[in-house]
Amino acid sequence: MNSIVQNQLKAFKESKQNRGCLLVKCPDQPGIVAAISKFLYEYNANIIESSQYSTDPHGGQFFIRIEFECGELKSKEEQIRKEFQTIAEHFSMDWNLTSGYEVKKTAIFVSKELHCLRELLWEWQSGDLLTEIAMVISNHEDSREIVESLNIPFYYIPASKENRAEVEKEQLALLKENNIDLIILARYMQILTPDFVEAHPFKIINIHHSFLPAFIGARPYDRAYKRGVKLIGATSHYVTNDLDEGPIIEQDIMRVDHRDKIEDLKKIGRSIERSVLSRAVKWHLEDRVIVHENKTIVF
Amino acid sequence: MNSIVQNQLKAFKESKQNRGCLLVKCPDQPGIVAAISKFLYEYNANIIESSQYSTDPHGGQFFIRIEFECGELKSKEEQIRKEFQTIAEHFSMDWNLTSGYEVKKTAIFVSKELHCLRELLWEWQSGDLLTEIAMVISNHEDSREIVESLNIPFYYIPASKENRAEVEKEQLALLKENNIDLIILARYMQILTPDFVEAHPFKIINIHHSFLPAFIGARPYDRAYKRGVKLIGATSHYVTNDLDEGPIIEQDIMRVDHRDKIEDLKKIGRSIERSVLSRAVKWHLEDRVIVHENKTIVF
Amino acid sequence: MNSIVQNQLKAFKESKQNRGCLLVKCPDQPGIVAAISKFLYEYNANIIESSQYSTDPHGGQFFIRIEFECGELKSKEEQIRKEFQTIAEHFSMDWNLTSGYEVKKTAIFVSKELHCLRELLWEWQSGDLLTEIAMVISNHEDSREIVESLNIPFYYIPASKENRAEVEKEQLALLKENNIDLIILARYMQILTPDFVEAHPFKIINIHHSFLPAFIGARPYDRAYKRGVKLIGATSHYVTNDLDEGPIIEQDIMRVDHRDKIEDLKKIGRSIERSVLSRAVKWHLEDRVIVHENKTIVF
Amino acid sequence: MNSIVQNQLKAFKESKQNRGCLLVKCPDQPGIVAAISKFLYEYNANIIESSQYSTDPHGGQFFIRIEFECGELKSKEEQIRKEFQTIAEHFSMDWNLTSGYEVKKTAIFVSKELHCLRELLWEWQSGDLLTEIAMVISNHEDSREIVESLNIPFYYIPASKENRAEVEKEQLALLKENNIDLIILARYMQILTPDFVEAHPFKIINIHHSFLPAFIGARPYDRAYKRGVKLIGATSHYVTNDLDEGPIIEQDIMRVDHRDKIEDLKKIGRSIERSVLSRAVKWHLEDRVIVHENKTIVF
Repeated sequence: MNSIVQNQLKAFKESKQNRGCLLVKCPDQPGIVAAISKFLYEYNANIIESSQYSTDPHGGQFFIRIEFECGELKSKEEQIRKEFQTIAEHFSMDWNLTSGYEVKKTAIFVSKELHCLRELLWEWQSGDLLTEIAMVISNHEDSREIVESLNIPFYYIPASKENRAEVEKEQLALLKENNIDLIILARYMQILTPDFVEAHPFKIINIHHSFLPAFIGARPYDRAYKRGVKLIGATSHYVTNDLDEGPIIEQDIMRVDHRDKIEDLKKIGRSIERSVLSRAVKWHLEDRVIVHENKTIVF
Repeated sequence: MNSIVQNQLKAFKESKQNRGCLLVKCPDQPGIVAAISKFLYEYNANIIESSQYSTDPHGGQFFIRIEFECGELKSKEEQIRKEFQTIAEHFSMDWNLTSGYEVKKTAIFVSKELHCLRELLWEWQSGDLLTEIAMVISNHEDSREIVESLNIPFYYIPASKENRAEVEKEQLALLKENNIDLIILARYMQILTPDFVEAHPFKIINIHHSFLPAFIGARPYDRAYKRGVKLIGATSHYVTNDLDEGPIIEQDIMRVDHRDKIEDLKKIGRSIERSVLSRAVKWHLEDRVIVHENKTIVF
Repeated sequence: MNSIVQNQLKAFKESKQNRGCLLVKCPDQPGIVAAISKFLYEYNANIIESSQYSTDPHGGQFFIRIEFECGELKSKEEQIRKEFQTIAEHFSMDWNLTSGYEVKKTAIFVSKELHCLRELLWEWQSGDLLTEIAMVISNHEDSREIVESLNIPFYYIPASKENRAEVEKEQLALLKENNIDLIILARYMQILTPDFVEAHPFKIINIHHSFLPAFIGARPYDRAYKRGVKLIGATSHYVTNDLDEGPIIEQDIMRVDHRDKIEDLKKIGRSIERSVLSRAVKWHLEDRVIVHENKTIVF
Repeated sequence: MNSIVQNQLKAFKESKQNRGCLLVKCPDQPGIVAAISKFLYEYNANIIESSQYSTDPHGGQFFIRIEFECGELKSKEEQIRKEFQTIAEHFSMDWNLTSGYEVKKTAIFVSKELHCLRELLWEWQSGDLLTEIAMVISNHEDSREIVESLNIPFYYIPASKENRAEVEKEQLALLKENNIDLIILARYMQILTPDFVEAHPFKIINIHHSFLPAFIGARPYDRAYKRGVKLIGATSHYVTNDLDEGPIIEQDIMRVDHRDKIEDLKKIGRSIERSVLSRAVKWHLEDRVIVHENKTIVF
């Protein structure tokens, strides 16, 4: 990492060092907010932003995201976790607590098309993505120069249908060794095996170059052109073992017309892909996304 | 038709009475624009707006729309048509000439959901849709009051899978008798038979309540809800005998989020459907749409 | 009110009869959410949706909207209000509690352009605006028919610069007599006096036909045309005594191009005005809007 | 220029070497299209895309853009220009003919904020901007590295109110020496003198970081924040000697809400500025823009 970026990241982490974020999902019932907020208050935490949503007041599912400021969070965190466990058990919560001083570690997978990678790196250099990009893995050499110029480790691992098992073994070793929290498929054109995907539940974000569920699978721009659509789109979603069927985090579209050839659709599409993927990654890094029944709640 | 609308329509027709519109499609070659524009010039026509497009300069397809003003058009039109035929044959043109003093006659088909019908009637009363709405046909009585209050003939023809043949016979008779130019399916929930569709090539405009080709077929909002999309859309297209596969004229979308239930998607969707259908109808009425290989050129 | 609409409204009110909504604004400090949620829990209220926001964790302003379900709310409400007062005083809260069984009463002011009125009436008939439209006041007769056809009282009060005082006296009497909660200026082209405005703080919603602060004042479409903008917009805001300077609730835009004359801008603009005003009114009726320092928080 | 980009540009120029583009503006009258298209036909030119527009058929202004393919254009161009002069004089045309084998030369002016420069360079490297970027001029050193890494000459000319005359003298010498066709102010925060602007009529494109005419002048994001707008925008326009009042080429907006601080507005705004400026530059380079009465026709 070059020194400017390093300093930026350091400053950002410092500004967030007492910032905690609690994500909770549980069956709805009265008293959940009261219990959580009383708990936080006892730690003298100040709630900065909270969003809550219930699918149904009678027997539905309850979701909350609470971002709070708590002095000396680092020294208290272990105890907070331990004590919150009692509340969590009482309400059968699925919960997650993250703190601003711990930055998520990210691995970006990319092939030959670099626009999504470039956008992520750019946003990251501007301080807009709070993460440590621990590595870029590619089955091509195209991105090596740009990646290494930022002092990010670059791993060239040629991949094809034939050597998938070996390739993933190598990738998994790298991911494990570096304690990677998030894998971003920034137009990585290889299919991952079910084992790889299952090992990272809702930890792999993909960008699909169409407005899903339209044009699932290969060559969406060619098919969009053929169908004569008037808008093209892109979709960022968590990867599951159903191709292009994982929970959607973000989508967007742009207008096209009869003058646009396939090449133009691709060009316009690249610009949508860039912004859709980086918004989805940002929201994930800020712990804004909860998955429920193959859908996302984005707070 | 009530008298205000009648007067408006009359004024509009008068303002357009010398306005002609020529739509042409033919194999591309040099000299087409020169031939057409020389021809129009000889009639002392002044070109107001023209748009031209070629798929490929070498062996592609050529499309043009020319809107012109020509004094005493009505008296010259027959001769114009006759003489233009020579040019048309020379360039193997598929062509169409319309004049502002001849207003297209429209039939609107509707079921129980009236929002698209209401929007069309509203736009029409505001003078934004230059057409004579010759009739509304429905398999329900819900829209009778609003339609008849505007002095538009309303035909209640109960329809179901069982009586499709008879129903269409009755409908076809009405359409023929009234020289209908355009059929608008404003959320008419019945499937038309292949014979009915083939009798009106690119003369039937439908609104489908999804962003095609996503959610082809029934209950698109339910499926959009289930899939967890972040945008919902609507698509207006010419009806062909492939369900929801006809040439797309216009599409649009709006953003939704996790808080939106199916009912909310429907509500938001209605607003998109209204505007998408009325734009498509407007462009068709203004002769802005050319169909080519199951796609539209919208000038 | 006609019977269909009446039944719809009744059904809606019933479905919401145990629904409460609490809006709070106060200086930020730890413990506010804990205090409020504990309080609600003691009444066995279940929180359906809550949104919270602080301008700054250190000495900033705190805002929250909590929508909850509470059995037999009607019978408990008086006591809830009384007891909540203690919490409110402790945290210096500016607060408001509304209940679903009490429907806000609305007066719509309109002149000759009826598109915004029509949209509001339409949304209201569809059950999308939960309010009792107690009257429409106009300085022209144009809307009488459509208003009275829905059994809504219509008051024709000719207005001009000269008779402003008398006119407002008459209007104020009507508003008071009917306990009006919200005044909607649906393209009412008269200026209100400072006294009138001050008597209804953040209770008057206007639609301005431009993207404020561009084109403040009269004839915005003419000026937009002259300036050659590529997008036109509309803005819905609370009326204050600074012309077009009140807190903005909602804005939107649409694309225009060189072919659009002033008349086209107006036509496109009407469609934006309709949707922007009805969204703003809807959010106000659902108690989603908090005003702070001439800006709005929309939850 | 690095070799990849150089090859791309070369390939692009070759693919366009027989492509001509004619822009015409003149008083409207019958026969203009006929005369132009007959003329082109005599040179065996094939019209690829043409767009035409008249402000008013009776005494208005006529505009046309014709893109055509003409074998051996280079050897014919001088004669085409000479002969077209006769037609041009007959119709009092203001006209311009450009050919694909002559690439426009561009100078980019930038200060410390590099996002617009980066976007332009990126688009240019991707082959989406057909231009020779002959130089980048800056009053800061920040962009030197990125510019020089692409083998584009970088000129550091410190500028302030005090030394404006000298600075512009130096800049003008560089522009002249390099036959610059287009100056792009990619967030160059210095005001140009009237003399400088007048020397480059409709040859200087600026990006203003607001939705003009809202927030003319300095610090638009601060003022947008203060006003509480719900959308922020950016505007690309030709520079004239009325600050931020030149003809608008393109505008766009994005949605913001109460949670967005000034820093967030700037961040969101940067993304709009990037795309708006690059679209405007692209359209200018493709000769799609005609200026008329302080407005643009964009074909």
